[in-house]
Amino acid sequence: MLTIILAESELELVPSDILKHPGVLTYAKKHGKKPEKTILDSSYHHRAMKMISESERRGRPDIVHIFLLNALESIANKKGELKIIIHTRNNQAIYVNPETRIIRNYPRFIGLMEQLFEKKKISAEDKILIELKNYRTLENLLGQEKYDSLIVFSPNAKKVKLASFINDLKKKKVKNILCVIGGFPHGDFHFDFSKVKHEKISIFEDDLTVWTVLNELIVNYENSFL
Amino acid sequence: MLTIILAESELELVPSDILKHPGVLTYAKKHGKKPEKTILDSSYHHRAMKMISESERRGRPDIVHIFLLNALESIANKKGELKIIIHTRNNQAIYVNPETRIIRNYPRFIGLMEQLFEKKKISAEDKILIELKNYRTLENLLGQEKYDSLIVFSPNAKKVKLASFINDLKKKKVKNILCVIGGFPHGDFHFDFSKVKHEKISIFEDDLTVWTVLNELIVNYENSFL
Repeated sequence: MLTIILAESELELVPSDILKHPGVLTYAKKHGKKPEKTILDSSYHHRAMKMISESERRGRPDIVHIFLLNALESIANKKGELKIIIHTRNNQAIYVNPETRIIRNYPRFIGLMEQLFEKKKISAEDKILIELKNYRTLENLLGQEKYDSLIVFSPNAKKVKLASFINDLKKKKVKNILCVIGGFPHGDFHFDFSKVKHEKISIFEDDLTVWTVLNELIVNYENSFL
Repeated sequence: MLTIILAESELELVPSDILKHPGVLTYAKKHGKKPEKTILDSSYHHRAMKMISESERRGRPDIVHIFLLNALESIANKKGELKIIIHTRNNQAIYVNPETRIIRNYPRFIGLMEQLFEKKKISAEDKILIELKNYRTLENLLGQEKYDSLIVFSPNAKKVKLASFINDLKKKKVKNILCVIGGFPHGDFHFDFSKVKHEKISIFEDDLTVWTVLNELIVNYENSFL
């Protein structure tokens, strides 16, 4: 089993300190939304975001969307071998039922996330598809998962050839792998991973987008384990 | 070198016979577009599309967007080993410079495609990033490419284990591989591939999304060839 946590992803509601910014109000009005129930999106809230901390990395629900489209449609997921958790900068965790067919259209995906933040659950036919839970820290969330090996992808770590690295896990008879990929567009994790036993790896000499790391991980996992 | 053609992708302008449909007019007005310069999108033109042929597979620029995001951000592309061509149902071909960083935001990507259909070229700093050319048939387009082996991905073909299949190409010293993936959401190619020498393969017992096939192809190519 492969569990992948998209950690510290930049998915959040518009922060309270910019709720009255003209850019936020105009966008909300145009789309028939309430400002306080709108997902922060750097494509639309760029000007307002200059007034909040870490503005250069926040407001990236697009990364979460592409991540989910790739993860849920993968062969590993179709074979029931994948568990996906989206963790956010505010330590919320979104659990996605593997059977969920995530909406393709981006503006509608944003609408779905806004519904999730409001209702904490998205269900269909009495089945919970997506669920939002609150944690105090990423460490608490990790503590809920069962795994033999925790791998953290970071551009600053030792470089490995991913195919061989995963094949070695298979040879060592590791069964449950927990992988953490950062859900932010650049920079490093806020979380101090020295608090948990883990191995940090890098798979390329240059920066990669979140979904490129995801695709490399999933296909190599399939090749070794399935 | 790996060349990937997304063939018969469902990217086109709104067809002339539905230009005056209320749904098309409302959408164009809301977004400040001219109906005849608007990309057909099943998410927005659903009602109007009931009046055109093959409505259940047309109007899927979202597939092209996800395809490009995955292809251009891949390690193979960053290493200069990938060539990407988007072929459309109307036999237009879009050549994308490997250095292009495709826009993440979906509505803006649509705007970019509308600009491309109007101007035939998107440039930045005197460099052509995206270019649109017209062909008579997919066969004409294929004839422009140099390759040793043509592989067509189709759910109805013989099933192979992709990692071994690509590794065998490497062993046979094949250098230039041309792969064709269908850019439509379901159904089969219109083009009759018996006109060209090719090998048709399937990589999973069930349907896969276009980008899942792409990711499997790219990562396995990297593992064998890079």
